[in-house]
Amino acid sequence: MDAAEFRRRGKEMVDYVADYLEKIEERPVYPDLEPGYLRDLIPTEAPCEPESFEDLMQDVERVIMPGITHWHSPNFFAYFPAASSYPAMLADMLCGAIGCIGFSWSTASEATLMSLLAARCKAVRRVQAVESERSESDVLSKLVAYTSDQAHSSVERAALIGAVMMRKVPTDEHFAVREEMLKKMVEEDKAAGLIPFYFCATLGTTPSCAFDHITKLGPLCNKENMWMHIDAAYAGSAFICPEFRPLLNGIEYADSFNFNPHKWLLINFDCSTMWVKKRTDIIGHWQIPLGRRFRSLKMWFVFRLYGLKGLQAHIRKQVALAKEFESLVQADNRFEICAEVILGLVCFRLKGSNELNQNLLKRITKSREIHLVPCQLSGRFVLRFAICARTTESRHIQRAWRHITQLAFELLQEQPH
Amino acid sequence: MDAAEFRRRGKEMVDYVADYLEKIEERPVYPDLEPGYLRDLIPTEAPCEPESFEDLMQDVERVIMPGITHWHSPNFFAYFPAASSYPAMLADMLCGAIGCIGFSWSTASEATLMSLLAARCKAVRRVQAVESERSESDVLSKLVAYTSDQAHSSVERAALIGAVMMRKVPTDEHFAVREEMLKKMVEEDKAAGLIPFYFCATLGTTPSCAFDHITKLGPLCNKENMWMHIDAAYAGSAFICPEFRPLLNGIEYADSFNFNPHKWLLINFDCSTMWVKKRTDIIGHWQIPLGRRFRSLKMWFVFRLYGLKGLQAHIRKQVALAKEFESLVQADNRFEICAEVILGLVCFRLKGSNELNQNLLKRITKSREIHLVPCQLSGRFVLRFAICARTTESRHIQRAWRHITQLAFELLQEQPH
Repeated sequence: MDAAEFRRRGKEMVDYVADYLEKIEERPVYPDLEPGYLRDLIPTEAPCEPESFEDLMQDVERVIMPGITHWHSPNFFAYFPAASSYPAMLADMLCGAIGCIGFSWSTASEATLMSLLAARCKAVRRVQAVESERSESDVLSKLVAYTSDQAHSSVERAALIGAVMMRKVPTDEHFAVREEMLKKMVEEDKAAGLIPFYFCATLGTTPSCAFDHITKLGPLCNKENMWMHIDAAYAGSAFICPEFRPLLNGIEYADSFNFNPHKWLLINFDCSTMWVKKRTDIIGHWQIPLGRRFRSLKMWFVFRLYGLKGLQAHIRKQVALAKEFESLVQADNRFEICAEVILGLVCFRLKGSNELNQNLLKRITKSREIHLVPCQLSGRFVLRFAICARTTESRHIQRAWRHITQLAFELLQEQPH
Repeated sequence: MDAAEFRRRGKEMVDYVADYLEKIEERPVYPDLEPGYLRDLIPTEAPCEPESFEDLMQDVERVIMPGITHWHSPNFFAYFPAASSYPAMLADMLCGAIGCIGFSWSTASEATLMSLLAARCKAVRRVQAVESERSESDVLSKLVAYTSDQAHSSVERAALIGAVMMRKVPTDEHFAVREEMLKKMVEEDKAAGLIPFYFCATLGTTPSCAFDHITKLGPLCNKENMWMHIDAAYAGSAFICPEFRPLLNGIEYADSFNFNPHKWLLINFDCSTMWVKKRTDIIGHWQIPLGRRFRSLKMWFVFRLYGLKGLQAHIRKQVALAKEFESLVQADNRFEICAEVILGLVCFRLKGSNELNQNLLKRITKSREIHLVPCQLSGRFVLRFAICARTTESRHIQRAWRHITQLAFELLQEQPH
């Protein structure tokens, strides 16, 4: 769907929404269906080929609407009000278009927290089943969780909230956690009387898109009764392409898995998905951890209107653009690549000091032509070039590189020789 | 704004969104402004009179856009992608219109959790400042939090997540917590070596819209170094009307306060607001607790296009409708009112057994004409009639009452005499 079609479909949708709300009284306020009715009405897989908007909207009436409790019907007197107004809807349209991300805590972070809490509860029950005299607070004080030194800051925060210890596992030269590193820490901690209970692996770290070795880490966690949560917030979307599926090997050992379709699967923010091996581990205690809008609707729209092929093409194109940028960097011997380019992220820097690279980034930021953020890799200041926008084309990559090299040229000219 | 104007404005917004995304490259990807720039561009208060949509959209360009980092510009290479597509935006429009609430955990629940965690952290620091030899896990195991036996289930869950004890304070005949009840429990617990640290008061409970006595509870909490959080999820919106402001007396003693504009202030789900007396209590530890969409945009739209007067009129009308329903119930001696009607909620029942009222609700639900949910008040099965939809008018109240009395008549006819 391009902008021209969006103009047309958007206006149809505005009318659909206005019709829906004007005639909402004509609909039964409460559905006459059993939970699970949807199963027979929808296919088990997303369509491979894109479908038409007309088919989709017919299915909105056929499939979705019969299952809806119409919270905005004037015959709805249950719970408390759920506010709704036309201006707020207009604002949400604009908000969706701007699609900027308010920072501090992402929804993948919440998945991490929930998995840690589930693991904590399970560990306490497991220890108390064997040593019934131990108090809950004693067990809690001995629990220890692990994650990569490259993991997202939200993992540490989950431990802070859950009031358990969290240890950072050092990574190898590819910024990945290897089995032997975790094993050593777990054995030391057990010898000291602590109880290892949780490991958060990362597939596609934030700084450099590194992949922890879960094929080996998984069996270790299973053997040690440690919950293995996998944070694949960014990289998870790539697993819809068979050629990237091997990066997911070892998933069979995981207790929980999270990725954010709002990062790389064309679903506007926010939309984060979580799988749990045993539902009861999560549901029995605090249910699904989020108040939620009807977010699955936008997944359904995107799956149907792009089709699997369209989504795969999007991922592949963005990986190709990253490879294109990587080639440009490699061809310029003033620069170096700092981590293997596996998906859509290129970590690079000028050969030279951290200060030099900090100055380069300052000039890039000041110019306001392109926007990048840095990371630290093994103490080195590195620039992260992530392929982000759906509309990024080769010409943007080429122009960005010309811009970066121009600024680098000016910077290097000014350096004392 | 009515449906007709929404059709017009919605289509203008579709074009604005398409224009924005088609020409996004022309905008500097990164803003050239300092944080705080907005302060001088916007008034300190919401407008009293509604403003025009044209003025608002002019301000979008004048006020909002200069401060935006354009995450969907093809010149944006920072962080990771934030997905965006036209189908997802269309789905979000529909999602906003349906506006159904996915259950299990609301955003007010997250505010409660965050306040409890902040209080926990503060309590541990306070105790350790005096008794430096006490371990964190020892202090944690002695902490005790309190809330009303009428409080939302999320309050208990917050304690479960935070791994601290939570005690339910019994309520008076109006379903409210009184000072003496909390005081007694706190004194008993202190005598037993526990550390009271947190009280979650409710203004407008879920079952019956009861108000805890915070003018007295507040000084007690302050004296005992207990964090007082106020959950006003529903009732909070009413405080924009001066005549309801006395219900907020005692707020000056609170450490944190939450209400959900998405409940009763015409802002589509989700939108929850939290105030904290000392920002550093929250921010220093885990920042603001939520990944977030650009939700303030819809508040801004609604404040401007309704004006304070329009929002006050909405609240007052809904309270009047609740009073109208209350009068209908009172005029029928087969029924009784079960709690004081303060805002937009009426708790009522047939005089008779819980089973009789359960049967009445079953018939109401089966008829699918109107939708209500029940509650328990002092062991009695009670029907909650909440004024919810923005479009509910007197005729809906009258019709709902005719419907309820018709079903009640049929039910009572069938009872053995």
